[in-house]
Amino acid sequence: MLLTKEKNGMEIIEERESAVRSYSRSFPTVFEKAKDHLVWDVDGKEYIDFFAGAGSLNYGHNNEKMKTKIMDYVMNDGISHSLDMGTVARAEFLETFNEVILRPRNLDYKVMFPGPTGTNTVESALKIARKVTGRQNIISFTNAFHGMTLGSLSISGNSSIRNGAGVPLTNTISMPYDTFFKNGNAIDYLEQYLEDTGSGVDLPAAMILETVQGEGGINAASFEWLRGIEKLCRRYDILLIIDDVQAGCGRTGTFFSFEPAGIQPDIVCLSKSIGGYGLPLAITLIKPEHDIWEPGEHNGTFRGNNMAIVAATEALSYWKTDDLAKSVQKKSKIIKLRFEQIVEDYPELKATTRGRGFMQGIACGKGKEAYATKICAKAFEKGVIMETSGPSGEVVKFLGALTIDETSLIKGLGILEEAIEEVVRQ
Amino acid sequence: MLLTKEKNGMEIIEERESAVRSYSRSFPTVFEKAKDHLVWDVDGKEYIDFFAGAGSLNYGHNNEKMKTKIMDYVMNDGISHSLDMGTVARAEFLETFNEVILRPRNLDYKVMFPGPTGTNTVESALKIARKVTGRQNIISFTNAFHGMTLGSLSISGNSSIRNGAGVPLTNTISMPYDTFFKNGNAIDYLEQYLEDTGSGVDLPAAMILETVQGEGGINAASFEWLRGIEKLCRRYDILLIIDDVQAGCGRTGTFFSFEPAGIQPDIVCLSKSIGGYGLPLAITLIKPEHDIWEPGEHNGTFRGNNMAIVAATEALSYWKTDDLAKSVQKKSKIIKLRFEQIVEDYPELKATTRGRGFMQGIACGKGKEAYATKICAKAFEKGVIMETSGPSGEVVKFLGALTIDETSLIKGLGILEEAIEEVVRQ
Amino acid sequence: MLLTKEKNGMEIIEERESAVRSYSRSFPTVFEKAKDHLVWDVDGKEYIDFFAGAGSLNYGHNNEKMKTKIMDYVMNDGISHSLDMGTVARAEFLETFNEVILRPRNLDYKVMFPGPTGTNTVESALKIARKVTGRQNIISFTNAFHGMTLGSLSISGNSSIRNGAGVPLTNTISMPYDTFFKNGNAIDYLEQYLEDTGSGVDLPAAMILETVQGEGGINAASFEWLRGIEKLCRRYDILLIIDDVQAGCGRTGTFFSFEPAGIQPDIVCLSKSIGGYGLPLAITLIKPEHDIWEPGEHNGTFRGNNMAIVAATEALSYWKTDDLAKSVQKKSKIIKLRFEQIVEDYPELKATTRGRGFMQGIACGKGKEAYATKICAKAFEKGVIMETSGPSGEVVKFLGALTIDETSLIKGLGILEEAIEEVVRQ
Amino acid sequence: MLLTKEKNGMEIIEERESAVRSYSRSFPTVFEKAKDHLVWDVDGKEYIDFFAGAGSLNYGHNNEKMKTKIMDYVMNDGISHSLDMGTVARAEFLETFNEVILRPRNLDYKVMFPGPTGTNTVESALKIARKVTGRQNIISFTNAFHGMTLGSLSISGNSSIRNGAGVPLTNTISMPYDTFFKNGNAIDYLEQYLEDTGSGVDLPAAMILETVQGEGGINAASFEWLRGIEKLCRRYDILLIIDDVQAGCGRTGTFFSFEPAGIQPDIVCLSKSIGGYGLPLAITLIKPEHDIWEPGEHNGTFRGNNMAIVAATEALSYWKTDDLAKSVQKKSKIIKLRFEQIVEDYPELKATTRGRGFMQGIACGKGKEAYATKICAKAFEKGVIMETSGPSGEVVKFLGALTIDETSLIKGLGILEEAIEEVVRQ
Repeated sequence: MLLTKEKNGMEIIEERESAVRSYSRSFPTVFEKAKDHLVWDVDGKEYIDFFAGAGSLNYGHNNEKMKTKIMDYVMNDGISHSLDMGTVARAEFLETFNEVILRPRNLDYKVMFPGPTGTNTVESALKIARKVTGRQNIISFTNAFHGMTLGSLSISGNSSIRNGAGVPLTNTISMPYDTFFKNGNAIDYLEQYLEDTGSGVDLPAAMILETVQGEGGINAASFEWLRGIEKLCRRYDILLIIDDVQAGCGRTGTFFSFEPAGIQPDIVCLSKSIGGYGLPLAITLIKPEHDIWEPGEHNGTFRGNNMAIVAATEALSYWKTDDLAKSVQKKSKIIKLRFEQIVEDYPELKATTRGRGFMQGIACGKGKEAYATKICAKAFEKGVIMETSGPSGEVVKFLGALTIDETSLIKGLGILEEAIEEVVRQ
Repeated sequence: MLLTKEKNGMEIIEERESAVRSYSRSFPTVFEKAKDHLVWDVDGKEYIDFFAGAGSLNYGHNNEKMKTKIMDYVMNDGISHSLDMGTVARAEFLETFNEVILRPRNLDYKVMFPGPTGTNTVESALKIARKVTGRQNIISFTNAFHGMTLGSLSISGNSSIRNGAGVPLTNTISMPYDTFFKNGNAIDYLEQYLEDTGSGVDLPAAMILETVQGEGGINAASFEWLRGIEKLCRRYDILLIIDDVQAGCGRTGTFFSFEPAGIQPDIVCLSKSIGGYGLPLAITLIKPEHDIWEPGEHNGTFRGNNMAIVAATEALSYWKTDDLAKSVQKKSKIIKLRFEQIVEDYPELKATTRGRGFMQGIACGKGKEAYATKICAKAFEKGVIMETSGPSGEVVKFLGALTIDETSLIKGLGILEEAIEEVVRQ
Repeated sequence: MLLTKEKNGMEIIEERESAVRSYSRSFPTVFEKAKDHLVWDVDGKEYIDFFAGAGSLNYGHNNEKMKTKIMDYVMNDGISHSLDMGTVARAEFLETFNEVILRPRNLDYKVMFPGPTGTNTVESALKIARKVTGRQNIISFTNAFHGMTLGSLSISGNSSIRNGAGVPLTNTISMPYDTFFKNGNAIDYLEQYLEDTGSGVDLPAAMILETVQGEGGINAASFEWLRGIEKLCRRYDILLIIDDVQAGCGRTGTFFSFEPAGIQPDIVCLSKSIGGYGLPLAITLIKPEHDIWEPGEHNGTFRGNNMAIVAATEALSYWKTDDLAKSVQKKSKIIKLRFEQIVEDYPELKATTRGRGFMQGIACGKGKEAYATKICAKAFEKGVIMETSGPSGEVVKFLGALTIDETSLIKGLGILEEAIEEVVRQ
Repeated sequence: MLLTKEKNGMEIIEERESAVRSYSRSFPTVFEKAKDHLVWDVDGKEYIDFFAGAGSLNYGHNNEKMKTKIMDYVMNDGISHSLDMGTVARAEFLETFNEVILRPRNLDYKVMFPGPTGTNTVESALKIARKVTGRQNIISFTNAFHGMTLGSLSISGNSSIRNGAGVPLTNTISMPYDTFFKNGNAIDYLEQYLEDTGSGVDLPAAMILETVQGEGGINAASFEWLRGIEKLCRRYDILLIIDDVQAGCGRTGTFFSFEPAGIQPDIVCLSKSIGGYGLPLAITLIKPEHDIWEPGEHNGTFRGNNMAIVAATEALSYWKTDDLAKSVQKKSKIIKLRFEQIVEDYPELKATTRGRGFMQGIACGKGKEAYATKICAKAFEKGVIMETSGPSGEVVKFLGALTIDETSLIKGLGILEEAIEEVVRQ
């Protein structure tokens, strides 16, 4: 292997990869293998992964059942790259998705395959919403993150991410997310803006939101707020887009994160764990009455990534029963209790807990962000992979695989607590 | 298999997939297997593929050497999804890319991994160009196509694709491509715009172009024009971005399409065939002095698609010798001669030939677009997959795998000619 | 006179003037003469003017002292049109403005003459604020009105006015005005947006506001809110622009409307009554440290309207003593008391009073806008000119000349009340 | 007078007026009186005015006939400020404009009164064009100048003027003006952009142009080009807007500058000399079928500047016969011949002549702009007021009053030539 010759892997990366690389800085090693909730680096060091590919690996790394399907498909020369031609793999996925996910939930959506990344499904959602309504404005929410292409940037909250655009971000308005407003009701506020024809806010084509803000600080919207938003959308004939890229596919305990709120979005964006195995895939769900695309009006070269589609179909089998959902809900409580205990036991952190399901965090307070960064760095040393979240990286974020066993979960949480203790004691 | 139960694959697709689907309309069948330049549908019908995943399959479908590498990697639980963490696969790719591609060409670029689609690498290129220069305007060219996200849309030429945005496309100006201007010199024209401070054209951060316009009608820029553009960029301190997503990776006979013109872009966008096996991957090459990204300033969940990276590394081995390049150049001449002969033999088409290397087309003239569409439909019936190109779909486009053997190439061209004859005779 | 031949004046206007005309619809007569607070139409009917040229005639129509100055200037062929060349009239105005207005208030501003309309001074203010800060975003406020050119439209609140632009209005954000938010503190809200780096609100170059919103419904900001805004501007290094086009020049009882709040804006926009006689004039006041214009960087053909400047200089003599101010304050109370009495006496209106100084209104409640329109129509019949204000025209707006004598004021208010009574009794 | 006390007028101006002032720098004196084509400063020095208020004083300074009308109107307390209420003065103007200007030319336009500046009529034209067509894009032309508010800036050619906006200028595209393209036909080029659906140029609502570019370098479009533009507009259903603010009202020898080209614009913008006396006024002429404004959809406080309107009506009497037109045409030839002679006699200037009618210039060539600036400075010393034009101020621009007598014209031209000789001999 090349790497053993003159330079090791990290040297090559430092020398040749763009300065934009980030995780190879936070996690300064070279990874080699992975299985389920575990990862190993080139030195054989084992890590419990509480990060799960930023939510792309809900079923763990290299999930054995999907691996078998992929191996079979590749072995038999199943067509690998197909754009949006008809393929057996695509038809099976569509049928399974309908049978296992949509029909049991009384949902009726057309399935669109945009380019296989989260930002591409978001861009497709904005386009169709503007086309359907003939309006140009989009309402997004504070601390939102939807991706890095220009359309998605325009609905992002984070100022340094926005600045990256290098051009003004237009045709969008940022409204307060449920948890944003310290002394006031975010729905009331938004309602006044929509109601008052002098408000300076142009009627939007759509509102887009994450039910739990993964990058924005693990802010979980209340179901009441979500229902309030849906109601406003209906009253003013605005489309409701749920970006379920990170919170979907079971991450919060149900397949769609919005299920317990009882709302029915017009458009749903899925990516990350929809592919099951961590392979690039994204789909956009569109209510049939809004599916007014012209053929090819939005496309992408890799929208027919059949290996990912094969794995995605297999992944759906986790949803034929409610075993996984129940297991996630049970383990979520373990995490929640442990986080609450930590907050209580380490008052120095001035911390609070956040989130729901397998998307939980410990917010260590403004100006104290060094805590979160230090905690994650220390945890990494000790063999647990976690990252920070929030506008100032002030939240320690748990995003483990849904399939992790309780023992490993508890072991990992223990290591996290050790890391916290060491950081606090310093 | 689900598909055999009540509905066949095409019925499922028609019922459940969004109206945006397009190739499953032009090629109305369900594909199952593929190898090299051949594809088979569920009925076992064999097709010669002159489309090659819209240029993503330069090395053919399910290339055996890459397949082996992928199988090994999956089998051994090599880490599949890794964001931009360090991985063995990534380090090997970087080292190989440097050794095999950059160094022999005296090129020095930092390698960035954006989200794994063509449009994502383009968006990253626009961002870094704006950051480096502090300017907001981008000059693009008539009949350009760079992708479907908002930033890429803003530099697209095609009006119906542009309209899809649903918002005005701003901070960009479309200048005449080399071949656009019937009676006038496109470089002179652009130069006057840049030179005259009253021209109404704000000094751009960058110019972005394809050396051969794949979607815009297989328009191949002359090397003289490319050099003229580079010269203007240098004179006015404008960055030059080559979008080599479709024309790169050997498609025109050299690894980078711009090599024979002797120019050195500041930024190069690669995707499609960089992954070798048709798996999603994209990289952005940036001159070291322009690589001023903050860590994580542009990112994407699937930027560490290791299976694609493993295949990509293997694909580079085709470039250790000049065998492939020579073979492509030789076969390109066969195509060119055959296309010229067709143009001569079928005067009813009022056709001209276009393009270079393995990116060639027969333009059937304005208002005659029915010819191109009918020819491709007829070719499909007869077992050859080809698509149209150009603003009105007026060009029959050849985009076969570089690795196709001469016999198959000639066989496919023969079928194409039969299709043309039948269409013309109707 | 032409008008007597075949068609009367209104017929000519209806036939030849654009459909955009509005006041000749609300006040369907042809006016001929005017003096102080009185106007006469061609039929000799006399009207008390409670509208005062939408606030341009603070010193009444054809003010005798200014008339004399203008007559002298014209008679002696004083240079009439001079762009921004030096003229005696201009120098006298500048010196007088400094001596009478700025110095006594401890204010130091450079005086800029943009094109002679309110919207032109606003556009100049936005430009210099963006130049000074290098930022592009502007924060404006709900129900704001700043003019009809594109820059001013982008900071307007009213949706139908905004829609008139025909393009998206960008680089601006509408925040809640003091009185907008029913259940919450508008300053707290804005502060959170500025403080939270994930808020999606790009740091602005400036905030621009009217202390009393003349078109937006006679909403008067509290001095506390104004001070809060100034504080936020200072904390975040944002320029504060006061658009005093309608509320300035004594309209609220002090020369600048912001004086009693104790704030010092960075930029002040004046027009309407700055010309004194109703002749077009506008000035932009800029703190010396922000006056970084290049010569001619913003200009306008009629920026040297010397007749208006001569009258403007004379108008300033009203401010050499505090007689006018005191008189306005006294008469303001008469108006306020009478309006409060009306609100009490006519509960059918479900009305509230609004405003301060000579900018007061009776808001007749949502959905009841017919009341305000009907009241103004009835008042017009009875010989009082008034217009409505607010997003739905729901406010009856008093905007009389500051110089009106108490008897006439009370007479006019009496007619207004009669009109209200008749409308309510219908 | 204040000015005589401690500081002279220029000192006051330097101290108090914003750095944006420009003409008081090029013409460093304080002007006091003016009559017809003459101006006097405070020291009694007389100047021949070849600048005429940048084209606002086509009938000379303080034109005696208009002066009488204004004096009468003011003396009799004619209503001075009336917004867009009906007034006798307005009705008379409308009727006269129709009788004297429109009907004899077989033109049918509705007359709109925007705010009284050139940029305001342009902004109104852009708005109504976008409303009529439902499109957002506007095509403007290289070296165009239409004003300083944001909408007008977006269609300006000059880069430093554009930069003044401080935000990207969007929804507009700059196409080559007739004289821009050294080696190519500007119409052919534009036609290809409109014809090719892949051109990247969105179909515009309107094209807007000046027939002679007053600020952009006295570039006079050929009538052939103007007809070509009109033809393209008709073919693609694009509105044609002529900005006749500077070139209209007789400046080129006919009332509208476009008359000799035989075209009929959809919208015409007039300001500057429409007021006759140099008082602020602007009108927008709109074909009746496009006059679809809602009442008040575009407005402005000073749109009822009756003194200007009274003068404007009187000014139209110049157009009841063709005396003025003939006189202008005769004197234009004198200017043209003299300029051609100068170009020949002073080869050091490497100059060419430009323009038509009373809008002519001597272009002294690129990089030689010091000549034009020095010539105008020297001419000013010698008692002739002229300014430069063009992107680099490289053109000496003649813009005298149309009413100047031949003797004075020749005298002024003589002084200009002396100035040139002195500058060249240095």
